[in-house]
Amino acid sequence: MAFNIAATDGKARTGTLETAHGVIRTPAFMPVGTAGTVKAVSPDAVRELGADIILGNTYHLMLRPTAERIAKLGGLHKFMNWPGPILTDSGGFQVMSLTKLRKMTEEGVTFQSHIDGSKHELTPERSMEIQALLGSDIVMSFDECTPFPATHEVAADSMRMSMRWAKRSRTAFQQAPGRGLFGIVQGGVYKDLRLESIAALTDIGFEGYSIGGLAVGEGQEEMFRVLDFTAPALPHDKPRYLMGVGKPGDLVGAVMRGVDMFDCVMPTRSGRTGQAFTRRGTLNIKNARHVDDHRPIDEECPCAACKDYSRAYLNHLFKANEIFGYTLLTLHNLTYYQQLMAGMRAAIAAGELTDFAIKFDEDQANGDIDPI
Amino acid sequence: MAFNIAATDGKARTGTLETAHGVIRTPAFMPVGTAGTVKAVSPDAVRELGADIILGNTYHLMLRPTAERIAKLGGLHKFMNWPGPILTDSGGFQVMSLTKLRKMTEEGVTFQSHIDGSKHELTPERSMEIQALLGSDIVMSFDECTPFPATHEVAADSMRMSMRWAKRSRTAFQQAPGRGLFGIVQGGVYKDLRLESIAALTDIGFEGYSIGGLAVGEGQEEMFRVLDFTAPALPHDKPRYLMGVGKPGDLVGAVMRGVDMFDCVMPTRSGRTGQAFTRRGTLNIKNARHVDDHRPIDEECPCAACKDYSRAYLNHLFKANEIFGYTLLTLHNLTYYQQLMAGMRAAIAAGELTDFAIKFDEDQANGDIDPI
Repeated sequence: MAFNIAATDGKARTGTLETAHGVIRTPAFMPVGTAGTVKAVSPDAVRELGADIILGNTYHLMLRPTAERIAKLGGLHKFMNWPGPILTDSGGFQVMSLTKLRKMTEEGVTFQSHIDGSKHELTPERSMEIQALLGSDIVMSFDECTPFPATHEVAADSMRMSMRWAKRSRTAFQQAPGRGLFGIVQGGVYKDLRLESIAALTDIGFEGYSIGGLAVGEGQEEMFRVLDFTAPALPHDKPRYLMGVGKPGDLVGAVMRGVDMFDCVMPTRSGRTGQAFTRRGTLNIKNARHVDDHRPIDEECPCAACKDYSRAYLNHLFKANEIFGYTLLTLHNLTYYQQLMAGMRAAIAAGELTDFAIKFDEDQANGDIDPI
Repeated sequence: MAFNIAATDGKARTGTLETAHGVIRTPAFMPVGTAGTVKAVSPDAVRELGADIILGNTYHLMLRPTAERIAKLGGLHKFMNWPGPILTDSGGFQVMSLTKLRKMTEEGVTFQSHIDGSKHELTPERSMEIQALLGSDIVMSFDECTPFPATHEVAADSMRMSMRWAKRSRTAFQQAPGRGLFGIVQGGVYKDLRLESIAALTDIGFEGYSIGGLAVGEGQEEMFRVLDFTAPALPHDKPRYLMGVGKPGDLVGAVMRGVDMFDCVMPTRSGRTGQAFTRRGTLNIKNARHVDDHRPIDEECPCAACKDYSRAYLNHLFKANEIFGYTLLTLHNLTYYQQLMAGMRAAIAAGELTDFAIKFDEDQANGDIDPI
C-alpha cells in the first residue's frame, strides 16, 4: 500500500494512498457507512460528491448480516455496491459504547448484541478474520478505546493491553496486495503514554497509524494539545488517521498538525436531524426563519440540495419528516466536508494552508450563513 | 390541453395529453407526491424511470407549507423541482379520510387539520384557488367521495351535491393555456347514478373526466363491473382518469376498459414496507428466505435496485431500517409500474393488448418470481 506525500506545508501533508480498490487523496474524510450503507444516500452519490473511501463498522456488520454472509455474497464492496476503497474499524470502540454485559480479559471481549441480546466474542484474531471476510482495504488493529477521563494508571494499563492486541493483530492479519493494517495509538491525554504506544507500534510495524481515544469528550483544545505531541512522533512516511473526528474546525486543526485521514458520523447524522454545515457555520434547517426563504443553503455549494432546492423546501421536508429531506441534507453535508478537504489539499499543495485556515476561521466566525 | 388518441385496441386507447409543462403518454401511471415529494426518491429519478406526470395532494399542501407559501416561492413545480406536468386532487377525499370534526354543508366542508388540529374550510371555490396557487396543470373539481358501501339514496344525494360542486368548480376554475379541469364521476356502484353523473358533467363540459369513488373496498370484480358501464359512457375524445387505482392487475383491467390515467400510493408505500412488485407477483423482501440470495429482485428489471443490488442486501437494509432500502425498493416499484404502462402503450399501438393481458395474468399466476 503505497503512500506518496506530494507536498508538505508546515506539519501538514498532501498526497495519495494507493489501495487495491483505488487511490485515496489525502488529507481525506471518510463518510461512515456503518451497516453497509452511508445512511440515506446512494454510493454513486457519495462517489460523485468527492469521497474516495468510506468506512464500515466491523461491530455492526458482524452482527447483521454477519461477516460470513457478506463474504459468501462476494465481500462488502460488492454487497453495498461501493467499488472504491473501504476502511473497517476493529469493532472495539462500538463494543465499548453499544453493548451490555461486557466482559474483557487478556484474550478479548465477550458481549451481548445490542440488536437481539445474542452473545458474541471479539479478539484480535477474530477482528482480523472478520475484516478479511469483509474484504476491507484498510484494516484496524483490535484495541480498547481508553475511557475518558482516565487516570494515568488506567490509561497505561489499557494502552498496554491494546499494544499486546496490536501485536496479535499484526500476526493474524491476512496480507494481500493493496491491503494494509493500521496500528492504533492509545494512551489517553498523557504524553509519555502516547509516546510509549507509538514506540510499541512502530516496533511492530504497520502500513499506517491511527490515533484513537480522542474526540471522546476532552474538547478541541485538549485534542489539539495531544495531537501536538502525538502526530510528529509518528513515522513521517506512513498515513495518520484520527479516528472519529470531527467538526469542520477539528479537521482543519488536525490537518495542520499532520493528520491525513478522518471519519465521523457528524455530516451524515446531522443530515438526518436538520443541521447543515456551511462555510459560515451551521444552520438548523428546521428553524422557522427558513420557512419562506427561497435561497439555497449556500449558493456557492455545488451539491444537489443547493443546486435545485430552497431552504423553504428543505424546512418543509423536515417538518413533514420526509425521507428526501434527510437525503438532500446528507448530500449537502458530505459535499461540504469533501469540499473542505479538497480545499485543504489544494492549499497544502500551494503552501497556503495557514491562509486557508485563517479564512476558514473568519468565515465560520461570521456566524450563520447569509442572514436575511 | 390537447388529447390525441394515436391508436385504439378494443376499448383501450393510447396517445398523448399535452400540458403547459410537457406531454403525458397515455395510458399513464402518476406517482403520488403527497407533500411535495414522491416519498424517498428524487424527482430526477422519478423522471428517469419513465414517469411523465406526478400527483400532488391539495389537502396536505394547503395545511403544510400552505398553498400561499408555495405560490410565493414560485409554485409547486419549482418548489419541489419537478418541471413536468402535475395533477392535483381536489382535497375532498383526504378531508373525508384523514380529518376529524368534519362538517359538510351545501357550501363546502369545515374540518380540523390532522397535523395540528387547526380549523380549515374547503369549498369548490377554495379548492380551485388552492390548485391555481400550486400551479397545477390538471385540476380536479371539488367533490365528495361517496362512502362505500352506500345505499342508492345516499349515493344519489352525495353524487348530486358533487355535481353542483363540479358546476361551481368550473365557474371558479382559472383557465390558462395548457391547464385543464377534470370533472369527477360519482354514483357509487349504481349504473343509473353513474350515467346521471356523466350526463351532468358532460353538460358542464370538462377537459377530462375522473372516475371517483372506486378502489374504496368494493373489490376488483365490482370495480371492473362499474367501469364496464362507466368508461364507455364518457366522451371518447377526452382523457379518463381512474382515481386511486391500483394494483398492477387493476391497471391492466382498467386500461382494457378504456381508462387513460391512474394514480396510487401502492408502489411508493410498498417500497417503504418491503413489498416488491414484479412480473411474477409480489415478494416481501423482509422474508428470511432472501437473506443469502445473491440475485436481484428481477434480473430483467432495469431499475437501480435490480442493476446493482442483491435481494440479500435489500433484505439487510430493511432489517436494519436503513433509509437507502426504502429508496431502492421505491425506485424498483415505480420502475415496475412505469414498465407495465409502457408495455400496455406498446401493446395497444400494436393491437396486441389482449395477448399482453393474457401473458400478464400467466406471469402473475406463476407466483413468486424465480424461486430458488
